[in-house]
Amino acid sequence: MSRHPAGAGPAAAPSGAAGPAPVRQCPAFPTPSPHPAADLRPHRTHREAHMTMTSQDAPVEGLGAPALLEGARAAVEPELRAAVETLPRPIRRVARYHLGWADEHGAPAATGGGKAIRPALVLAAARALGADPLGAVCPAVAVELVHNFTLLHDDVIDEDPTRRHRPTAWAVFGVPDAIITGDAMLSLAVRLLAADPLPTAGAAVARLTECVIELCAGQQADCAFEDRPPEAVTLDEVLAMATAKTGALLGTSCALGALYAGAGDEAVAALDAFGREAGLAFQLIDDLIGIWGDPGRTGKPAGADLAAHKKSLPVVAALASGTEAAEELAELYRHPMDERAVRRAAAAVERAGGRDWAQAAAAERMAGAMDGLARAVPDVAAADDLLALAEFVTRRTR
Amino acid sequence: MSRHPAGAGPAAAPSGAAGPAPVRQCPAFPTPSPHPAADLRPHRTHREAHMTMTSQDAPVEGLGAPALLEGARAAVEPELRAAVETLPRPIRRVARYHLGWADEHGAPAATGGGKAIRPALVLAAARALGADPLGAVCPAVAVELVHNFTLLHDDVIDEDPTRRHRPTAWAVFGVPDAIITGDAMLSLAVRLLAADPLPTAGAAVARLTECVIELCAGQQADCAFEDRPPEAVTLDEVLAMATAKTGALLGTSCALGALYAGAGDEAVAALDAFGREAGLAFQLIDDLIGIWGDPGRTGKPAGADLAAHKKSLPVVAALASGTEAAEELAELYRHPMDERAVRRAAAAVERAGGRDWAQAAAAERMAGAMDGLARAVPDVAAADDLLALAEFVTRRTR
Repeated sequence: MSRHPAGAGPAAAPSGAAGPAPVRQCPAFPTPSPHPAADLRPHRTHREAHMTMTSQDAPVEGLGAPALLEGARAAVEPELRAAVETLPRPIRRVARYHLGWADEHGAPAATGGGKAIRPALVLAAARALGADPLGAVCPAVAVELVHNFTLLHDDVIDEDPTRRHRPTAWAVFGVPDAIITGDAMLSLAVRLLAADPLPTAGAAVARLTECVIELCAGQQADCAFEDRPPEAVTLDEVLAMATAKTGALLGTSCALGALYAGAGDEAVAALDAFGREAGLAFQLIDDLIGIWGDPGRTGKPAGADLAAHKKSLPVVAALASGTEAAEELAELYRHPMDERAVRRAAAAVERAGGRDWAQAAAAERMAGAMDGLARAVPDVAAADDLLALAEFVTRRTR
Repeated sequence: MSRHPAGAGPAAAPSGAAGPAPVRQCPAFPTPSPHPAADLRPHRTHREAHMTMTSQDAPVEGLGAPALLEGARAAVEPELRAAVETLPRPIRRVARYHLGWADEHGAPAATGGGKAIRPALVLAAARALGADPLGAVCPAVAVELVHNFTLLHDDVIDEDPTRRHRPTAWAVFGVPDAIITGDAMLSLAVRLLAADPLPTAGAAVARLTECVIELCAGQQADCAFEDRPPEAVTLDEVLAMATAKTGALLGTSCALGALYAGAGDEAVAALDAFGREAGLAFQLIDDLIGIWGDPGRTGKPAGADLAAHKKSLPVVAALASGTEAAEELAELYRHPMDERAVRRAAAAVERAGGRDWAQAAAAERMAGAMDGLARAVPDVAAADDLLALAEFVTRRTR
């Protein structure tokens, strides 16, 4: 069912198109990675997978989400690097730093980029619909670029000094370079998809840009909420914001994987809905980590979101609880907080039920996502990567 | 030669595409405008045009660039408004303010947006290649959106407080909203093009996003030059920067018009080159206006570029002249300038030959552009709109 038979994949240049300067396209079959998880296991049944898991010479099956993420990184990174190399030099320098590939002087570094959750979802969604995941490397690269564009701009907007244990790009290179590099990475993402000669490329670009507009709305709402007093933001508003800010790109990642698998409208919509639900679960967990995460693992100070007066999901749920703890939390949110106040605020969120609510809401979203997926994907076994990734994001601790 | 015969233009929705929420598409034939110049005069020969010019009942022909710009605005604005209306509300509010359609409270205003040079170039390029200009409204809207995206971000980056006689968007709504609205307008531009079912849409998106990356490089260079001492920027570097920052989008505007006219690679490339040359002429004139423009017309203080220590083309040419005036200018550029110093700097640019050089260089670029165009366009008469626009931008005074 792959749309990329050998020799006819997206590596072929569009013939006769009056396009811009040539760009290295996402090939259907990138250089084989030395990492075994890069073999993304197309077309196996759940039963075959189980059999393989019990055999000693197959290290891939059953490794679960960490191996899938590692595999996605291995499949996507060569294409991502090739794409970033096409950027003009001063912009490339900022992009390479932001992605963890270089230090601030441009010297190679391996400080580790993101977790590659979005690319992994693209590939897993393609596989869930019976296609070779490697045929969907191009949209996987595109969503990772879009994700990093949002990080660059959000760090400027939120004035966040740290990202992935390092100073943020704007803190190192200045606000102008961070804004410009974000703009260029967004454009690069779209250019990659648009240069793909697949007939589905137009729909993919339309979907991705629609998603970016939704991401913008989510980020805008997030900022707007910060200026409001704590009691003036409703849980529904924050849920809508989180859906736009996080759910949209996870949903789009799944939808692009489905689109590249040649799926019909209904399956694409179902995969989008799955990703959105999983994305909201992801955000709920992220918000918990923003309060109770280990600074050694998150790279941020303990309770960073509380200190920044973030109206995250557990906080707003706690504020809306009508409890005494809610009142204490609201009072704390009216003033700057020192370390002790942050600890008190965290305790108040917990006593007001915000922590339990967020955990239960994440589990509920995941259950809904999996139910929807089971109905949409004909071969349930093919969806095991997607399920593993979705479960992973609701269990992670950083 | 039009790719948009009646009833089969880009107004038709892509059938069966698993795209995002429906967006009002750029129709082939927008609502007729009450303004006569909106009739964009397809398929007339130069001779016919001349004949019409002499007849009393035909107010359109021969009005030249101002009427073409007015006509482009009339053709593009309904589509632009419809596209902006699809943006999420808080983002739309900023976009409408920036475009001059609303005041800071959202109340309707008619403070006048931009000059619509880029949309006019798209339409004129389509006509030059024998197509109905109204078939190219969609890319005309897209380039205007991209232009405004760059203005929003550039104003943040340059900390410019004023644009089109009003406070800039970031000054009114804050930096976050200005960045986010720019991102959304860029995405909207691409989404419009991608939603167009024309087979050429993919090439158009690739070209537009390639152009945005070039615009980013130009803006990055512009910022980087500001941090260097006056003598450390060469004229070649500033010319390359201006080509990227201004020439690229004017070239892309012409190229998209050609692409939508169904032109082949060679003609598209020739139109791109024409737009780039005209764009550099445009920038040269813009730089002169930045020094000698009338504040009442430009909406900026006299000599604003000098006060900001901008290394604009006439300034760098003056600095490179090896004259005594160059030394005086370099010295002035090493310190903050009051009004008197700005006047001295302007006089020094003039004495060092920067003003004459810029005027001559603009004329030279225009001559080159027109020569190239004459070779590329089979029916020279069809190119008269393009020529009128190109001449206009090198003669304007604001």
